[in-house]
Amino acid sequence: MSLDGTYDEANIFALILQGKIPSTKLYEDENTFAFLDIMPQTRGHALVISKWSKARNLLEMEDEALAQVMATTKKVATAIRKALNPDGIQIAQFNGAPAGQTIFHLHVHILPRWEGDPKGFAAHGAGAQADKDALAALAEEIRAQF
Amino acid sequence: MSLDGTYDEANIFALILQGKIPSTKLYEDENTFAFLDIMPQTRGHALVISKWSKARNLLEMEDEALAQVMATTKKVATAIRKALNPDGIQIAQFNGAPAGQTIFHLHVHILPRWEGDPKGFAAHGAGAQADKDALAALAEEIRAQF
Repeated sequence: MSLDGTYDEANIFALILQGKIPSTKLYEDENTFAFLDIMPQTRGHALVISKWSKARNLLEMEDEALAQVMATTKKVATAIRKALNPDGIQIAQFNGAPAGQTIFHLHVHILPRWEGDPKGFAAHGAGAQADKDALAALAEEIRAQF
Repeated sequence: MSLDGTYDEANIFALILQGKIPSTKLYEDENTFAFLDIMPQTRGHALVISKWSKARNLLEMEDEALAQVMATTKKVATAIRKALNPDGIQIAQFNGAPAGQTIFHLHVHILPRWEGDPKGFAAHGAGAQADKDALAALAEEIRAQF
């Protein structure tokens, strides 16, 4: 899908927000929701989304929703740092399939990085699906740091 | 440099903001500054920085400065899209050397992407230095779209 198009009300993240699909929650407030990526590229790979914006990508995003998502991204990155002590943290946000976007509800990736790891970012979905119990345990570690 | 440390007043982006080092400006407002990366990883690779925040990374960034930088990132990405018609746009922000950060003044990368191009992001500085005149011509194309 290119940068053009319309918001699909049945995209996976919309269904997560409606509680129709489970997710491993890290943090939630009135406007934003953060959870662990089910196909993590690094330990602690998290995603942050807006609960109300129907923006598929950055070009469509309301400034207010963008500010809310980024403030939560900072909050979650801080908790991840405390919980997992990474050496660095990458933030990534993809717009359009040719840029690696696979779910068309704007989302920000938080990727903890450790010294010696590769720094590159593969296209989304390139990782394997994580073990559900391992994700739940990891989320508990991170949630304890808010 | 890890996530710890103090802000270096003589970092390259601070010197650009002080006018001591030239840059190829795309956009500027009261709080933010956007310019072309001198070692572009894709055509139109741009950077956005805060003019007042002394945050080295996301963990240190004031929410207000972050919101301003992201609003400008959206604005510049929109102009880049109009000027260069990419198929997708990646946004990336690196925290700490092990995550690919080389200049310790928070900056957001805007990377236009075209169908068929590799989607991965190399460590910063992996590209070759761009031709100055080519950068200036490119900036003019983009600036015309604000």
